[in-house]
Amino acid sequence: MRGYSTTREDYLKRLRRIEGQVRGLQRMIDEDKYCIDILTQVSAVTKALQSVAVRLLDEHVRHCVRDADDDTADEMISEATRAIERLVTS
Amino acid sequence: MRGYSTTREDYLKRLRRIEGQVRGLQRMIDEDKYCIDILTQVSAVTKALQSVAVRLLDEHVRHCVRDADDDTADEMISEATRAIERLVTS
Amino acid sequence: MRGYSTTREDYLKRLRRIEGQVRGLQRMIDEDKYCIDILTQVSAVTKALQSVAVRLLDEHVRHCVRDADDDTADEMISEATRAIERLVTS
Amino acid sequence: MRGYSTTREDYLKRLRRIEGQVRGLQRMIDEDKYCIDILTQVSAVTKALQSVAVRLLDEHVRHCVRDADDDTADEMISEATRAIERLVTS
Repeated sequence: MRGYSTTREDYLKRLRRIEGQVRGLQRMIDEDKYCIDILTQVSAVTKALQSVAVRLLDEHVRHCVRDADDDTADEMISEATRAIERLVTS
Repeated sequence: MRGYSTTREDYLKRLRRIEGQVRGLQRMIDEDKYCIDILTQVSAVTKALQSVAVRLLDEHVRHCVRDADDDTADEMISEATRAIERLVTS
Repeated sequence: MRGYSTTREDYLKRLRRIEGQVRGLQRMIDEDKYCIDILTQVSAVTKALQSVAVRLLDEHVRHCVRDADDDTADEMISEATRAIERLVTS
Repeated sequence: MRGYSTTREDYLKRLRRIEGQVRGLQRMIDEDKYCIDILTQVSAVTKALQSVAVRLLDEHVRHCVRDADDDTADEMISEATRAIERLVTS
């Protein structure tokens, strides 16, 4: 369907944007910006990170779990479930 | 009690560490690291950001809301509540 | 401004609705409903609970923290911050 | 491995406990309990619900997605991903 390298490029692009947003937060702190505006920006970065995570998880189930043999798949699903737990509570 | 500049330095230190973690995520993607390990790292960055947010909120209520006159404080609390809503759902 | 009893009645109404939704979830499990539909409903209940929490927090800061003397207010804000932390990570 | 009916009984047990906790919240409101104690209890109920959700998701991938043919599985994974998105942001 689509090459993995394209996806990788897409993840990198998102993460570079997130890195830029985190540097933006440093500037806001440095320039004494209004606290609530900084908080709004923190929420935006968090959402962007969660979206990367959900997408990684989707691809993991789609490509790794489904191609695995039964025993490996069982272990992989348990592992993915624990990752979801960490995401939901972070 | 403590100078604001110390706090600012502390926020900057945390945000620089978060920036480093986001660059670490890019490296992990680049080196084709195992998906679940990347997810664990995404959760760690999200937690670090949420912790910055909660701390900003604490200081906001402590310093700005309490020093404000009644009308301004009312508006500031509504604003802080909306910020908490965005945090809780991000 | 508005009587506390009205607010209490409003909280009780929301919580009774949430109780009904939780009973609805039991029915869905009992009738073997499709897993994803149950999950959608769980997310709705969680959002309703978070909304009760954010509202309680708003009133707490508005009424209790602001009316407290300085030392008590300091302790109350620390306490509220810990409650926000628990909410953000639940 | 284990019969589905056992699992169903387990979900029902958890949901009945959650229903009891929601009634407990109503009592706390009714008895004018301290706001922060109510918030702590709301966080506990939310965590219990999230834990039901993560478990439902685990079983869904384990039993439905893996048994589905390729096209259906693709659609099911997209559906599960959207459910995770709703959970993460609720």
